[in-house]
Amino acid sequence: MNDTTRTKRQGAVKQITSHSNPIVKEIKALVSQRKYRTQSGLFVAEGLKLATDALDAGWEVRYLVLGPDARDHPVAQKAAATAKARGALILEVNTAVLAAMTRKDNPQMVVGVYEQKLMPIDSIRPQDSTVWVALDRVRDPGNLGTIIRTVDAVGASGIILVGDCTDPFAVETVRATMGSLFHVPIVKTGKDRFKSLATAWPGTVAATHLKGSVDYRQPDYSEPVLLVMGNEQQGLEDDMAEVCKTLIRIPQVGEADSLNLAVATGISLYEIRRKHLAL
Amino acid sequence: MNDTTRTKRQGAVKQITSHSNPIVKEIKALVSQRKYRTQSGLFVAEGLKLATDALDAGWEVRYLVLGPDARDHPVAQKAAATAKARGALILEVNTAVLAAMTRKDNPQMVVGVYEQKLMPIDSIRPQDSTVWVALDRVRDPGNLGTIIRTVDAVGASGIILVGDCTDPFAVETVRATMGSLFHVPIVKTGKDRFKSLATAWPGTVAATHLKGSVDYRQPDYSEPVLLVMGNEQQGLEDDMAEVCKTLIRIPQVGEADSLNLAVATGISLYEIRRKHLAL
Repeated sequence: MNDTTRTKRQGAVKQITSHSNPIVKEIKALVSQRKYRTQSGLFVAEGLKLATDALDAGWEVRYLVLGPDARDHPVAQKAAATAKARGALILEVNTAVLAAMTRKDNPQMVVGVYEQKLMPIDSIRPQDSTVWVALDRVRDPGNLGTIIRTVDAVGASGIILVGDCTDPFAVETVRATMGSLFHVPIVKTGKDRFKSLATAWPGTVAATHLKGSVDYRQPDYSEPVLLVMGNEQQGLEDDMAEVCKTLIRIPQVGEADSLNLAVATGISLYEIRRKHLAL
Repeated sequence: MNDTTRTKRQGAVKQITSHSNPIVKEIKALVSQRKYRTQSGLFVAEGLKLATDALDAGWEVRYLVLGPDARDHPVAQKAAATAKARGALILEVNTAVLAAMTRKDNPQMVVGVYEQKLMPIDSIRPQDSTVWVALDRVRDPGNLGTIIRTVDAVGASGIILVGDCTDPFAVETVRATMGSLFHVPIVKTGKDRFKSLATAWPGTVAATHLKGSVDYRQPDYSEPVLLVMGNEQQGLEDDMAEVCKTLIRIPQVGEADSLNLAVATGISLYEIRRKHLAL
């Protein structure tokens, strides 16, 4: 890298006090509108921990917004220096602007705007994978974020979002990942393309299903595993279930109709990876 | 029961169109203010499924609010008849009033107001129990509701809320239980009283803890089990961990610092009840 390049890539620092500043409006739109996130390819992650995770994992940072508390916070200053060196614009704002941006009364001291990153489905290499979790039309941002966090914790390979899913880059989803978003590959695809992948999958293809007759502890789950989980309300569609060789069920007693999706995925993943995880 | 009693207990039907009706204001306060829920001993559960669950489980219903879609819905009408026969006031409202009550643009067609029910800690009989889950200062309503749902699904005996916990009767908590709130005994207690219970507990007392050295799959979990889970941010306090004979840990790889509380509780519960659950 020569000096010119370095100068070009070097970011800048800017103070903002007005709520009508265009960047404040842009961040507000990224927080509240999926459409705007999709068009711009950007997303918002709140908090210093997530900023540190994003920078450590090499994600592209567009803006790093610092509230008053971040000015003499050493970790925040280090994050800002790193972000600036990588070409980000550092925005110093007051608490009112920070609260307006994030629509929160008690905003975090640091808010980052990053470039979205998805992995193309063709890049999935089953032979190099442990477990991929496919979510069929997942609706709840908290569930998706929590599942991304669990996928990270068990050393699974990534998440495949099939069909019309909630936005992995929504603020609530990102928050629920607790930083794991920056470590877990995410693929988005349509149902037909997914069904081709599942049909050609060389290892175990298991789906939790109400009609499942196999106790979730029975299969030997030879890796690579493809674990398919259905929508919160409707479960898995029949044609999706058809491409899954093993329909498993988690036993239940009591009056509950079903488990929460993120809990069911967590229980399945810990069972699938049971031989591979130890203290 | 003689005729006079039956007449006294018989409820009534009332139409409400005004947003400033005192009952509308009361329900709004129950939805938004924990203080008001505590003072009145009442709470709100949205949806026909939860109304049916509450009535089937014999909870006391104060009001059953029916939106326009419930007027010719046979299940809703049956619930209303049952509630009325048990002394509830049935409120027929328009969609605007229903939306205002619940602060939701798309309210459910039925909203119920029920009497809170907690179990005194002295009523816990370890010898008749499977697993009690104690939550130390749980903060997130979604986590608490999801844990109540899982406790129901595994046939655990109930939940003990220790110290300053989120409200089990908050609308978000109730929603996340998916009706299991009406089937799972809930105890609220202080730390000292809980520590006495744990110290005298005749079976396994296990807590998940970052310093835990026992893989969660190792203990034999002889019932009755007391499973203790710490706060989302800070985990378990040291003096709470001291009364737990077995400090377990769920192994993790990857970059995640920890699991979501409801997921960790679900994985632990399915391990604890492993021998007792089967398809």
